[in-house]
Amino acid sequence: MNEKNKKINLSQKLKKINDYWSPKVVSELNDYQFKLVKVKDDFVWHHHSKSDETFIVIKGKLFIDFKNKTEEINEGEIITVAKGINHKPFAKKEAHVLIVEPRGVKNTGNLNTDLTAQNDVWI
Amino acid sequence: MNEKNKKINLSQKLKKINDYWSPKVVSELNDYQFKLVKVKDDFVWHHHSKSDETFIVIKGKLFIDFKNKTEEINEGEIITVAKGINHKPFAKKEAHVLIVEPRGVKNTGNLNTDLTAQNDVWI
Repeated sequence: MNEKNKKINLSQKLKKINDYWSPKVVSELNDYQFKLVKVKDDFVWHHHSKSDETFIVIKGKLFIDFKNKTEEINEGEIITVAKGINHKPFAKKEAHVLIVEPRGVKNTGNLNTDLTAQNDVWI
Repeated sequence: MNEKNKKINLSQKLKKINDYWSPKVVSELNDYQFKLVKVKDDFVWHHHSKSDETFIVIKGKLFIDFKNKTEEINEGEIITVAKGINHKPFAKKEAHVLIVEPRGVKNTGNLNTDLTAQNDVWI
Protein backbone atom coordinates (compact mmCIF):
# COMPACT_ATOMS: atom_id res chain seq x y z
CA MET A 1 0.00 0.00 0.00
CA ASN A 2 2.99 2.29 0.29
CA GLU A 3 2.84 3.87 -3.11
CA LYS A 4 5.32 6.69 -3.49
CA ASN A 5 5.36 9.27 -6.28
CA LYS A 6 1.56 9.17 -6.38
CA LYS A 7 -0.82 11.59 -4.72
CA ILE A 8 -2.99 10.49 -1.82
CA ASN A 9 -6.38 12.08 -1.18
CA LEU A 10 -6.91 12.37 2.56
CA SER A 11 -10.73 12.68 2.37
CA GLN A 12 -10.97 9.45 0.40
CA LYS A 13 -8.72 7.67 2.88
CA LEU A 14 -10.77 8.98 5.81
CA LYS A 15 -13.89 7.29 4.41
CA LYS A 16 -12.19 3.97 5.16
CA ILE A 17 -11.85 4.73 8.85
CA ASN A 18 -14.71 3.67 11.11
CA ASP A 19 -13.25 3.64 14.61
CA TYR A 20 -11.93 6.45 16.77
CA TRP A 21 -8.35 6.69 18.07
CA SER A 22 -7.09 4.06 15.65
CA PRO A 23 -4.45 5.62 13.39
CA LYS A 24 -4.09 4.22 9.87
CA VAL A 25 -0.96 4.69 7.78
CA VAL A 26 -1.34 6.46 4.42
CA SER A 27 2.28 7.21 3.48
CA GLU A 28 5.85 6.63 4.53
CA LEU A 29 8.70 9.14 4.39
CA ASN A 30 11.91 7.18 4.97
CA ASP A 31 11.20 5.49 8.34
CA TYR A 32 8.51 7.99 9.33
CA GLN A 33 4.79 7.44 8.84
CA PHE A 34 1.80 9.66 8.07
CA LYS A 35 -1.23 8.29 9.89
CA LEU A 36 -4.82 9.45 9.60
CA VAL A 37 -7.01 9.20 12.66
CA LYS A 38 -10.57 10.09 13.59
CA VAL A 39 -10.85 11.26 17.19
CA LYS A 40 -13.74 11.95 19.54
CA ASP A 41 -14.05 12.19 23.34
CA ASP A 42 -11.12 11.43 25.59
CA PHE A 43 -7.88 9.64 24.90
CA VAL A 44 -5.54 8.64 27.74
CA TRP A 45 -2.69 10.50 29.41
CA HIS A 46 0.55 9.11 27.98
CA HIS A 47 3.97 10.03 26.65
CA HIS A 48 6.36 8.76 24.02
CA SER A 49 9.78 8.29 25.55
CA LYS A 50 11.79 8.15 22.34
CA SER A 51 10.09 10.46 19.86
CA ASP A 52 8.33 13.73 19.28
CA GLU A 53 4.90 13.50 17.64
CA THR A 54 3.29 15.96 15.21
CA PHE A 55 -0.47 16.45 14.81
CA ILE A 56 -1.91 18.23 11.76
CA VAL A 57 -5.61 18.99 12.11
CA ILE A 58 -7.47 18.28 8.87
CA LYS A 59 -11.03 18.83 10.10
CA GLY A 60 -12.61 19.95 13.33
CA LYS A 61 -10.90 20.80 16.57
CA LEU A 62 -8.36 18.76 18.52
CA PHE A 63 -7.58 19.55 22.15
CA ILE A 64 -4.45 18.40 23.93
CA ASP A 65 -4.20 18.61 27.70
CA PHE A 66 -0.71 19.18 29.07
CA LYS A 67 0.23 19.32 32.75
CA ASN A 68 -0.32 23.07 32.98
CA LYS A 69 -2.40 24.02 29.96
CA THR A 70 -4.75 22.90 27.20
CA GLU A 71 -3.96 23.57 23.54
CA GLU A 72 -6.83 23.92 21.05
CA ILE A 73 -5.67 22.96 17.57
CA ASN A 74 -7.99 23.87 14.71
CA GLU A 75 -8.14 22.99 11.03
CA GLY A 76 -4.99 24.36 9.38
CA GLU A 77 -2.99 24.23 12.58
CA ILE A 78 -0.27 21.84 13.68
CA ILE A 79 1.45 20.99 16.94
CA THR A 80 4.54 18.97 17.77
CA VAL A 81 4.50 17.32 21.17
CA ALA A 82 8.03 16.85 22.51
CA LYS A 83 9.21 13.38 23.46
CA GLY A 84 8.73 12.49 27.09
CA ILE A 85 5.97 15.05 27.63
CA ASN A 86 2.75 13.76 29.14
CA HIS A 87 -0.30 14.73 27.13
CA LYS A 88 -3.96 13.77 26.73
CA PRO A 89 -5.64 14.43 23.39
CA PHE A 90 -9.40 14.85 23.31
CA ALA A 91 -12.11 16.15 21.00
CA LYS A 92 -15.56 17.44 21.91
CA LYS A 93 -16.85 16.56 18.44
CA GLU A 94 -15.38 14.23 15.82
CA ALA A 95 -12.15 15.61 14.39
CA HIS A 96 -9.76 14.35 11.72
CA VAL A 97 -6.04 14.46 12.29
CA LEU A 98 -2.88 13.56 10.38
CA ILE A 99 -0.17 12.28 12.72
CA VAL A 100 3.51 12.18 11.76
CA GLU A 101 5.97 10.06 13.74
CA PRO A 102 8.53 7.30 13.27
CA ARG A 103 7.34 3.86 12.19
CA GLY A 104 6.61 1.66 15.21
CA VAL A 105 5.39 4.29 17.66
CA LYS A 106 2.46 3.02 19.72
CA ASN A 107 -0.54 5.36 19.99
CA THR A 108 -0.79 5.02 23.78
CA GLY A 109 2.97 5.49 24.26
CA ASN A 110 4.06 4.13 27.62
CA LEU A 111 0.71 2.42 28.29
CA ASN A 112 -1.20 -0.64 27.17
CA THR A 113 -4.91 0.08 27.40
CA ASP A 114 -8.17 -0.68 25.62
CA LEU A 115 -7.26 2.28 23.39
CA THR A 116 -3.95 0.79 22.27
CA ALA A 117 -4.35 0.37 18.52
CA GLN A 118 -2.76 -2.14 16.22
CA ASN A 119 0.29 -0.58 14.66
CA ASP A 120 1.30 -0.26 11.02
CA VAL A 121 -2.19 -0.76 9.57
CA TRP A 122 -2.39 0.78 6.09
CA ILE A 123 -5.46 2.10 4.33
CA MET B 1 11.68 29.57 17.19
CA ASN B 2 11.20 25.85 17.65
CA GLU B 3 8.44 25.91 20.19
CA LYS B 4 7.08 22.47 20.89
CA ASN B 5 3.85 21.69 22.74
CA LYS B 6 2.29 24.82 21.26
CA LYS B 7 0.03 25.03 18.23
CA ILE B 8 1.21 26.68 15.04
CA ASN B 9 -1.22 28.40 12.69
CA LEU B 10 -0.12 27.79 9.12
CA SER B 11 -2.07 30.74 7.62
CA GLN B 12 -0.40 33.15 10.01
CA LYS B 13 3.02 31.74 9.20
CA LEU B 14 2.33 31.97 5.46
CA LYS B 15 1.79 35.73 5.78
CA LYS B 16 5.48 36.00 6.63
CA ILE B 17 6.56 34.44 3.34
CA ASN B 18 7.15 36.78 0.41
CA ASP B 19 9.26 34.79 -2.03
CA TYR B 20 8.47 31.69 -4.04
CA TRP B 21 10.33 28.37 -3.72
CA SER B 22 11.96 29.39 -0.46
CA PRO B 23 10.88 26.92 2.25
CA LYS B 24 10.68 28.23 5.82
CA VAL B 25 10.75 25.95 8.85
CA VAL B 26 7.76 26.08 11.22
CA SER B 27 8.29 22.99 13.39
CA GLU B 28 10.71 20.17 14.08
CA LEU B 29 9.83 16.55 14.80
CA ASN B 30 13.01 14.91 16.10
CA ASP B 31 15.46 15.59 13.25
CA TYR B 32 12.73 16.16 10.68
CA GLN B 33 11.40 19.57 9.68
CA PHE B 34 8.03 20.94 8.57
CA LYS B 35 8.62 23.71 6.03
CA LEU B 36 6.05 26.03 4.51
CA VAL B 37 6.60 27.20 0.97
CA LYS B 38 4.77 29.36 -1.54
CA VAL B 39 5.22 28.10 -5.08
CA LYS B 40 4.45 29.49 -8.52
CA ASP B 41 5.70 28.73 -12.03
CA ASP B 42 8.49 26.24 -12.61
CA PHE B 43 11.01 24.77 -10.22
CA VAL B 44 13.99 22.75 -11.51
CA TRP B 45 14.40 19.05 -12.20
CA HIS B 46 16.29 17.55 -9.27
CA HIS B 47 16.43 14.62 -6.90
CA HIS B 48 17.36 14.01 -3.28
CA SER B 49 19.82 11.13 -3.09
CA LYS B 50 19.45 10.36 0.60
CA SER B 51 15.82 11.05 1.51
CA ASP B 52 12.19 10.83 0.51
CA GLU B 53 10.25 14.10 0.55
CA THR B 54 6.59 14.63 1.44
CA PHE B 55 4.44 17.48 0.10
CA ILE B 56 1.12 18.39 1.76
CA VAL B 57 -0.90 20.87 -0.28
CA ILE B 58 -2.48 23.52 1.97
CA LYS B 59 -3.91 25.77 -0.74
CA GLY B 60 -4.12 25.68 -4.50
CA LYS B 61 -2.74 23.09 -6.82
CA LEU B 62 0.82 21.69 -6.99
CA PHE B 63 2.02 19.78 -10.03
CA ILE B 64 5.01 17.46 -10.02
CA ASP B 65 6.53 16.25 -13.26
CA PHE B 66 8.11 12.80 -13.14
CA LYS B 67 9.93 11.11 -15.99
CA ASN B 68 6.78 9.46 -17.32
CA LYS B 69 3.87 11.32 -15.78
CA THR B 70 2.63 14.47 -14.07
CA GLU B 71 0.89 14.33 -10.71
CA GLU B 72 -1.64 17.04 -9.80
CA ILE B 73 -1.84 17.47 -6.04
CA ASN B 74 -4.74 19.51 -4.70
CA GLU B 75 -5.63 20.96 -1.34
CA GLY B 76 -6.10 18.10 1.11
CA GLU B 77 -3.82 15.79 -0.83
CA ILE B 78 -0.28 14.65 -0.10
CA ILE B 79 2.48 12.96 -2.03
CA THR B 80 5.76 11.38 -0.98
CA VAL B 81 8.49 11.51 -3.62
CA ALA B 82 10.91 8.61 -3.18
CA LYS B 83 14.60 9.31 -2.70
CA GLY B 84 16.65 9.34 -5.88
CA ILE B 85 13.64 10.03 -8.11
CA ASN B 86 13.95 12.97 -10.48
CA HIS B 87 11.05 15.37 -10.22
CA LYS B 88 10.13 18.92 -11.19
CA PRO B 89 7.49 20.70 -9.10
CA PHE B 90 5.52 23.54 -10.69
CA ALA B 91 2.36 25.53 -10.11
CA LYS B 92 0.25 27.40 -12.67
CA LYS B 93 -1.03 29.74 -9.94
CA GLU B 94 0.35 30.44 -6.48
CA ALA B 95 0.01 27.44 -4.20
CA HIS B 96 0.92 26.84 -0.56
CA VAL B 97 2.63 23.64 0.46
CA LEU B 98 3.89 22.05 3.67
CA ILE B 99 7.04 20.02 3.06
CA VAL B 100 8.28 17.33 5.45
CA GLU B 101 11.84 16.04 5.24
CA PRO B 102 14.95 15.60 7.40
CA ARG B 103 16.77 18.68 8.64
CA GLY B 104 19.50 19.75 6.22
CA VAL B 105 17.88 18.71 2.94
CA LYS B 106 18.53 21.30 0.21
CA ASN B 107 15.50 22.36 -1.83
CA THR B 108 17.25 21.85 -5.18
CA GLY B 109 18.66 18.46 -4.14
CA ASN B 110 21.62 17.54 -6.32
CA LEU B 111 21.86 20.99 -7.90
CA ASN B 112 23.05 24.46 -6.99
CA THR B 113 21.00 27.01 -8.93
CA ASP B 114 19.48 30.45 -8.54
CA LEU B 115 16.56 28.63 -6.92
CA THR B 116 18.68 27.04 -4.19
CA ALA B 117 17.28 28.48 -0.97
CA GLN B 118 19.01 29.12 2.32
CA ASN B 119 18.40 26.20 4.60
CA ASP B 120 17.04 26.07 8.13
CA VAL B 121 15.35 29.48 8.05
CA TRP B 122 12.57 29.63 10.65
CA ILE B 123 9.49 31.81 10.59
